[in-house]
Amino acid sequence: MHSKRFYTLSASCPDRIGIIARVSGFIAEHKGWILESRYHADEGNGTGDDSGRYFMRIEVRADSLPFHLAEFRERFRPIAEELSMNWKISDSAVRKRVVIMVSKQEHCLYDLLARWQSKELDIEIPCIISNHDTFKGFVEWHGIPFLHVPVNPDNKQAAYAEVQRLFEEVKGETMVLARYMQIISPELCAKYAGQIINIHHSFLPSFVGARPYHQAYQRGVKLIGATCHYVTSELDQGPIIEQDVIRIDHSDSVDDMVRYGKDIEKAVLARGLRYHLEDRVLVHGNKTVVFR
Amino acid sequence: MHSKRFYTLSASCPDRIGIIARVSGFIAEHKGWILESRYHADEGNGTGDDSGRYFMRIEVRADSLPFHLAEFRERFRPIAEELSMNWKISDSAVRKRVVIMVSKQEHCLYDLLARWQSKELDIEIPCIISNHDTFKGFVEWHGIPFLHVPVNPDNKQAAYAEVQRLFEEVKGETMVLARYMQIISPELCAKYAGQIINIHHSFLPSFVGARPYHQAYQRGVKLIGATCHYVTSELDQGPIIEQDVIRIDHSDSVDDMVRYGKDIEKAVLARGLRYHLEDRVLVHGNKTVVFR
Amino acid sequence: MHSKRFYTLSASCPDRIGIIARVSGFIAEHKGWILESRYHADEGNGTGDDSGRYFMRIEVRADSLPFHLAEFRERFRPIAEELSMNWKISDSAVRKRVVIMVSKQEHCLYDLLARWQSKELDIEIPCIISNHDTFKGFVEWHGIPFLHVPVNPDNKQAAYAEVQRLFEEVKGETMVLARYMQIISPELCAKYAGQIINIHHSFLPSFVGARPYHQAYQRGVKLIGATCHYVTSELDQGPIIEQDVIRIDHSDSVDDMVRYGKDIEKAVLARGLRYHLEDRVLVHGNKTVVFR
Amino acid sequence: MHSKRFYTLSASCPDRIGIIARVSGFIAEHKGWILESRYHADEGNGTGDDSGRYFMRIEVRADSLPFHLAEFRERFRPIAEELSMNWKISDSAVRKRVVIMVSKQEHCLYDLLARWQSKELDIEIPCIISNHDTFKGFVEWHGIPFLHVPVNPDNKQAAYAEVQRLFEEVKGETMVLARYMQIISPELCAKYAGQIINIHHSFLPSFVGARPYHQAYQRGVKLIGATCHYVTSELDQGPIIEQDVIRIDHSDSVDDMVRYGKDIEKAVLARGLRYHLEDRVLVHGNKTVVFR
Repeated sequence: MHSKRFYTLSASCPDRIGIIARVSGFIAEHKGWILESRYHADEGNGTGDDSGRYFMRIEVRADSLPFHLAEFRERFRPIAEELSMNWKISDSAVRKRVVIMVSKQEHCLYDLLARWQSKELDIEIPCIISNHDTFKGFVEWHGIPFLHVPVNPDNKQAAYAEVQRLFEEVKGETMVLARYMQIISPELCAKYAGQIINIHHSFLPSFVGARPYHQAYQRGVKLIGATCHYVTSELDQGPIIEQDVIRIDHSDSVDDMVRYGKDIEKAVLARGLRYHLEDRVLVHGNKTVVFR
Repeated sequence: MHSKRFYTLSASCPDRIGIIARVSGFIAEHKGWILESRYHADEGNGTGDDSGRYFMRIEVRADSLPFHLAEFRERFRPIAEELSMNWKISDSAVRKRVVIMVSKQEHCLYDLLARWQSKELDIEIPCIISNHDTFKGFVEWHGIPFLHVPVNPDNKQAAYAEVQRLFEEVKGETMVLARYMQIISPELCAKYAGQIINIHHSFLPSFVGARPYHQAYQRGVKLIGATCHYVTSELDQGPIIEQDVIRIDHSDSVDDMVRYGKDIEKAVLARGLRYHLEDRVLVHGNKTVVFR
Repeated sequence: MHSKRFYTLSASCPDRIGIIARVSGFIAEHKGWILESRYHADEGNGTGDDSGRYFMRIEVRADSLPFHLAEFRERFRPIAEELSMNWKISDSAVRKRVVIMVSKQEHCLYDLLARWQSKELDIEIPCIISNHDTFKGFVEWHGIPFLHVPVNPDNKQAAYAEVQRLFEEVKGETMVLARYMQIISPELCAKYAGQIINIHHSFLPSFVGARPYHQAYQRGVKLIGATCHYVTSELDQGPIIEQDVIRIDHSDSVDDMVRYGKDIEKAVLARGLRYHLEDRVLVHGNKTVVFR
Repeated sequence: MHSKRFYTLSASCPDRIGIIARVSGFIAEHKGWILESRYHADEGNGTGDDSGRYFMRIEVRADSLPFHLAEFRERFRPIAEELSMNWKISDSAVRKRVVIMVSKQEHCLYDLLARWQSKELDIEIPCIISNHDTFKGFVEWHGIPFLHVPVNPDNKQAAYAEVQRLFEEVKGETMVLARYMQIISPELCAKYAGQIINIHHSFLPSFVGARPYHQAYQRGVKLIGATCHYVTSELDQGPIIEQDVIRIDHSDSVDDMVRYGKDIEKAVLARGLRYHLEDRVLVHGNKTVVFR
């Protein structure tokens, strides 16, 4: 968290000799001041040979460079091509656009709006979409448009088409399912891979699917948890961004678990979302590299 | 957390033989159904002789008893006197009256109101008092009176007299300092001993006083925390109700710590407040027994 | 943990009015001094009616009673029958007899013997049984008999018959699988239900069966854990006594996980075993009540 | 944790533009394969200008380089001088020499020897020194020389001179105070700054000095902890390497805390020692950078 404006380069490429030297050399050549940098080699077959993949995230002070982002992109492209990189670069001065999807549970919504209100979460929320109108007044009080898109067994396809239309219309970049409680259509999952973040109310892969606290109660586990993950078309199987747990015991009913769980859910969602928005999460197959 | 109405008896007395038998015998005699009960012997000198003190908390289903709370009190009094008890009994059907004091930080306020809105925290909030008007609109939107009582070096005595007057006027039972950031007057501390709950932004007794995150940064600790405690006239020295910590590392600035700290603060305050409101906290000298 | 000798009564029975009064009344009548007592009502259908089951654990100072354990049992029996109790009572002065089963991993074995050496774990270890002879010297140095019972696909039945014979011969009460890495025969599981404790190297129900750390690595979880449970004939499905987790990240290989996991495994096993030995664990169907 | 032999370069220097480029460029030029690398800018005054200090740790596969360690050092020296670096480089194939100091408590000793026995801790232990002879047999059984150096109020100077002589004689590099319970002489602290590691049985800076669990009991804290730190001449004030905590409650006596504390102490010491031995800890004033 730096007070100065900076650019964040995040990238992955096949591992080989000289990647850091190539990238940091380019930055140094232009007098770029590196604020923070993280690198990770996924060793693949574990022998350290070139079957692995390399990940990086670099923050460079904007005012240390003699050019702006567009020119950075232009000049960096040949290096990226040479290294066969997947890469992107973002500007800390440009707020990301996050659409929040909610249902009737309040905890994640209040938590996200508290962070947004204090600018801890320095994002644009162009709209909040819900299948219920429970939080219409609360959201609108914050000056954020509230869009009610009812979902029922008969209109799912139309409803998700409408969600997609709205997301495009407001130029959404990230969609957060803040206990949205509906299964997103495969079309949305595919179109916005790596852009839709869900909070699941169990410590995955335990208790996939519905009513995880009931499942946890039945099994008699001593800790319950929550998982923040990217949404894919396979339910609760997407790349995990963040998880945490809390201790329970025999005296806790399912209702108690639901209550404890809420505290974990909102904390895990907030952390996972933050990592995502700061380009700290790089997806690697069905896993993530998270440069906290 | 029970769905049925119940009475909660909480008490402490000198330890001796037969306390549980006496109290549970009384309840059984009237066909009282015990939902939950907890006992603790503080051994005092550790030898188990009668220098110790005994603590208990018992939930009895209201509809299992042939009389109401007033008569319970009347009939139980001789036993309490015989055992030299400090005791009280409360009715789950009567909402407790909690006055929240805030300043300009949002996280604990949003968190408490989210819990109140969903009835997870099933209390009356007759008013919220602040030395700033930052959250006037937000609080009033929830239908809760917002009272602005400015505090400055010159008017402290008058300001706290006003806070006391308001607390009395609204029949407040518990006062929560939700990052209120002002030192409460000794008069208030004394008058409402065991009724004022503070959240301190360090893992006490580390980093007493101002700017604990700066102190933590200077010392280079690897975990930071928060402490929920009863307010006494000695700053940050009151009986501790609940604490928790979160891991940090060398890459975290003071601003990062403040941000992580908020998540711990609101979680610890919410847990501590809940224990207090459910009569799970019994003060013993400068310590607490917490029947979670 | 009390310095004085005490008896521990642990029991469960159908829930009804007056259980605590009946039991604590009996103890008080004989001037028994209760050091610690815990009660739990499992509400069954959640309505608080008499479909539920009641659990208790009471420690009484031995020297406060006018009779010894045998007479306590005799006198308590009618009450237990009246309440349809499953119950037992143990004497803190009588060390429990624990047989440890190990294979080739050292961490749980060293950890248990360190606790035994310092009397933190105040038990008799009549022997340690292993399918390998790796730790023969180490165990014998501690003055504990080491019994090598090789197990291979062809001799399983004979091997477990031998284990059973040895366990009986040394009057074993509890069998601890301290990373024993072999699946115990259904006969042993059935014969010693609630007496065999295993440490599984995952946070169950995640990653049942073999190579849980590999499974965790594949799934990309952000925490790994361990589970201490009673062994039943269904693999990794027995009642859970204790669990814990530790944070990992993308930079941790399977080998790193194994290393972190060891620390969780030994801590969780030691806690779970302690609860068991102190009669703090009451089995309820496939779950446990743990009066920590 | 890599299976291949590698060199670990750890260094700090004044922050400026181009540090990573310079160092990684040198490595790439010689076809060095970077397995893992971590960088950290301590921002000093927080403005990101050049008052800060830069830290790094780089693992390079030994067999990827065309020269051995001595030549690496020779060739790297000019760069290090140009950047005004404090630096060192170590070889994963050379075991570090660790002298363990113990008193009469077993938990850290057993824990360290278990890790050493399994090669999880792949070090040389040339001797174990103690002010008591409690663990003579146990240590010698492991084939490690046990040296008894009694310490009493009258012989402290001579005793520490002897400890120093022995440490030098066995070519010790790191000294671990595994609950040694004696205050090391200022001479030793000064001579081996950054080489002596202690485990303190509290979450520093809480409860400095003697009997921290008694202090914790008196204050009524809800978590207790342990701190692994470098020893300096100021008692319990040295740079913190690692800390952790465990939850306790009102029912825990000082003896219970001691017992819980042991589990935290040994885990924290083992983690801190490992970070140190892998050159992951860089001291910065009275704080540490720990590249976990």
